[in-house]
Amino acid sequence: MIMFDYKLLAALAAVVEQGGFERGAQVLGLSQSAISQRIKLLEARVGQPVLVRAARPQPTDLGQRLLNHVQQVRLLEGDLQQWVPALDDGAAPERLRLALNADSLATWWAHAVGDFCGERHVLLDLVVEDQEVGLKRMRAGEVAGCVCASPRPVAGGRCEPLGAMRYRGLASPAFIARHFPRGVTPAGLVRAPAIVYGPDDQLQHRYLKDLGVDGHFSYHLCPSSEGFVRMTSGGLGWGLVPEQQVRGELERGELVDMLPGRAIDVPLYWHHWRNGGELLAALTRHLLAKAPDQLVPISRE
Amino acid sequence: MIMFDYKLLAALAAVVEQGGFERGAQVLGLSQSAISQRIKLLEARVGQPVLVRAARPQPTDLGQRLLNHVQQVRLLEGDLQQWVPALDDGAAPERLRLALNADSLATWWAHAVGDFCGERHVLLDLVVEDQEVGLKRMRAGEVAGCVCASPRPVAGGRCEPLGAMRYRGLASPAFIARHFPRGVTPAGLVRAPAIVYGPDDQLQHRYLKDLGVDGHFSYHLCPSSEGFVRMTSGGLGWGLVPEQQVRGELERGELVDMLPGRAIDVPLYWHHWRNGGELLAALTRHLLAKAPDQLVPISRE
Repeated sequence: MIMFDYKLLAALAAVVEQGGFERGAQVLGLSQSAISQRIKLLEARVGQPVLVRAARPQPTDLGQRLLNHVQQVRLLEGDLQQWVPALDDGAAPERLRLALNADSLATWWAHAVGDFCGERHVLLDLVVEDQEVGLKRMRAGEVAGCVCASPRPVAGGRCEPLGAMRYRGLASPAFIARHFPRGVTPAGLVRAPAIVYGPDDQLQHRYLKDLGVDGHFSYHLCPSSEGFVRMTSGGLGWGLVPEQQVRGELERGELVDMLPGRAIDVPLYWHHWRNGGELLAALTRHLLAKAPDQLVPISRE
Repeated sequence: MIMFDYKLLAALAAVVEQGGFERGAQVLGLSQSAISQRIKLLEARVGQPVLVRAARPQPTDLGQRLLNHVQQVRLLEGDLQQWVPALDDGAAPERLRLALNADSLATWWAHAVGDFCGERHVLLDLVVEDQEVGLKRMRAGEVAGCVCASPRPVAGGRCEPLGAMRYRGLASPAFIARHFPRGVTPAGLVRAPAIVYGPDDQLQHRYLKDLGVDGHFSYHLCPSSEGFVRMTSGGLGWGLVPEQQVRGELERGELVDMLPGRAIDVPLYWHHWRNGGELLAALTRHLLAKAPDQLVPISRE
């Protein structure tokens, strides 16, 4: 028995994915009043609101559960399509919604998944989230997969190691000359401004702690991977940067490793739904094959 | 008459800026119970909650107004310090909280403000927001300044033109060979996957519209400037990229301008509080002097 009218669920998905009724309607080739009507009908069927009406409509808890269901059904339909090629006639490409940490997206991700997306005609809806929020979105069913540093699978999900990103403590030569004229010391690092990605970025704290310094230091906040590199090479502060993101800057001497030999490895894990369908399983196989070329092995501590 | 106990306001600011009671207490050198106590005392004084208690505490509307006030007082105190050098003894560096569009942060921003921050011992708290949200944060007093594409000043604020970022429609040579074997055409662009930064990024839509194509096209969503470039050069899609962000990739032929001669210029404006104190005024002078070297002139249409 089929419980839902999928036209109504597709309307909900379009409004949320496109960020509004007008764009949602446009994607489905409907009028705005038609898509509103479908949402209202869906709400009448389930007996509760599915959307919080705002400049950018947000799903209610129930709405989110329905969206989760729509995404799972789409993945399962994708599996079916390869057996029923006629269904594929003019079908829209498959979409996968995934959460990633910002530094993965800024470095190895596109290289690891490029072929896969091209061959399978997959479009990615990427969401940049630090690990706790990324996993929360997994649990809520908002994303089908997540790359983050946590090795703990969520309920209904699997988790597999991908490799680690290696971070080094970098600064520009001018910054080093100015702030560490007699060499880089723990006390000097505490006095010189650092750069921190956001309140959850503890890498600079760990770097100092490993040097025996614990406590407060002053820092810029810069929630952008690329901005972080630009601020470091622009001499605004020192910070921990994935070495693969700045090979060119290191070669050209625009950035310098402050304490060569010291690095922090951040292990990364791929979280995915256990029953996410064949496409998600294929992406998982692809990632597990490709990621090791881009990352360093996870060390056992 | 001084209405507020600034110790209490500083406690509120620390909890919100550090994203939690524990870290807020650490920064102020207080125990967690002492900082909780101060927040409760502040709430008793103002007769309303100032924080929404959550994993990451958020200010209430009133709390936000108080934070706005704290930031303004800090800026005014900063002005005073240069006249009372003794006050500066061991004083923490000044902080400026600013909102920027992601592409500015990924390109010209650090270069334009690096000297200023070094000379004036300023730490930046940067927030990445598209323009509507950035201006909303200006209005709410959450940030003292904002770089965005809107030329309309907010109440209590000034707005000055900085220059424009030039975007070009780029793709990798492999992507072009695969999707446009007979040359790049509007119809071909609609069929090939694009990359879009987020629901508010209309640059790809405008590029197609300028070519006479209006309507739906399929795209990846990638809310990261650096990720966007990596996905473009990785062959996942075509997209509009600031030319100054990819000079190297264009020179090395890793990215190709699909339709040379076509570009979209996005004008950028600097919004700042009218009475933001001397430091903000000095940053404004510095930005207005430096930004034109990094940007192209804004064209009058």
